[in-house]
Amino acid sequence: MLDKARGFFITIEGIEGAGKSTCLDAISSTLAEMGINNPIVTREPGGTEVGEAIRAILLNSHYRGMSGESEALLLFAARAEHVAQVIRPNVEAGRWVISDRFTDASYAYQGGGRGLGAERIATLEKWAMPDDIQPDITLLLDVEPHVGRERVGKRKGEADRFEKEQDDFFAVVREAYLNRATAQPQRFRVIDANQSVDYVTRQVKQAIRGLIEQRSN
Amino acid sequence: MLDKARGFFITIEGIEGAGKSTCLDAISSTLAEMGINNPIVTREPGGTEVGEAIRAILLNSHYRGMSGESEALLLFAARAEHVAQVIRPNVEAGRWVISDRFTDASYAYQGGGRGLGAERIATLEKWAMPDDIQPDITLLLDVEPHVGRERVGKRKGEADRFEKEQDDFFAVVREAYLNRATAQPQRFRVIDANQSVDYVTRQVKQAIRGLIEQRSN
Repeated sequence: MLDKARGFFITIEGIEGAGKSTCLDAISSTLAEMGINNPIVTREPGGTEVGEAIRAILLNSHYRGMSGESEALLLFAARAEHVAQVIRPNVEAGRWVISDRFTDASYAYQGGGRGLGAERIATLEKWAMPDDIQPDITLLLDVEPHVGRERVGKRKGEADRFEKEQDDFFAVVREAYLNRATAQPQRFRVIDANQSVDYVTRQVKQAIRGLIEQRSN
Repeated sequence: MLDKARGFFITIEGIEGAGKSTCLDAISSTLAEMGINNPIVTREPGGTEVGEAIRAILLNSHYRGMSGESEALLLFAARAEHVAQVIRPNVEAGRWVISDRFTDASYAYQGGGRGLGAERIATLEKWAMPDDIQPDITLLLDVEPHVGRERVGKRKGEADRFEKEQDDFFAVVREAYLNRATAQPQRFRVIDANQSVDYVTRQVKQAIRGLIEQRSN
């Protein structure tokens, strides 16, 4: 029997074009197969009204010169609201919450890509969220920057402020993600997202089934 | 002779309705009388394009439930840009910069009014602005909350998210401002802003003339 007292908090991470939507679909269908319907699907930056307003600033290509510090502060402003209003109350009410990106993204993008370093992100994390909340599982879709870029390039619409970054930026972001995964192997599942949709879907299903079985025992 | 190598950084602080516009006019006219024209007049939150976008979120009454943490993070996100793009380069170029509010407002509003405390604001200040920059002088317009409220009430337009707060909130903000002034008497000039416009104008002129004479000696 599943412990119904507390829900699960799942996060999906990866650089642009890693296939997070594919992963989200695979999680939802796996949960449905296990009889778990209507998970809360949310995203960062965003997930609340004020968070979405902050997202609009962060992704706006007009603000290309924004400092890494300001980026990180904006992300944690949105995240503090997201945790307080969406993630924590739903997980505590026994629901499944799936977030497209969470704190690991700040370690990867601002700590790595913008060069702030992991320590400064850790300080800010502790400041913004003194009542620590961590995902039960984090699916890291690991993809080579040029593969991600080609996938993003096939989408319609103008590239956002992050999508406009170059491969060398995403190489640093990717490395910072992998460092997080190496440091916390019990929480992370690293999936080779250079592979086909079928492969990624199978890996995601396996990870989610494993999580549910673990909880059942 | 004035030392032309570095400009001056002046900040104006106070609760809603304290008379900051009156103070700003008095500073500008005093500087003009002393032959100092075209100071950079700026404000917080705001002062840059991204800062003004952040201001629009902070003042929007729609987000009444926003946490003190998110408020503080948004304010420092805007402030980091403001310091890097406007305040520091202009002061270093020898110009006079006058800002309607600065970091003291975070100590007063989020540290005091929202209850985060001065220590948490100090941590965030150090994080967001590792290369410390402080005003040369801070004019604190000290007014009783009900007097400020009556002045705001006479203005046209809907009250913003902060203006909608009650007198007890502003009483705590005011106290936190006065605590800052007591702790840093060399930087602060506290002006009784319950008095007439003429009185406040005279006090401001005297403070600015004193600052210039001090620099000349």
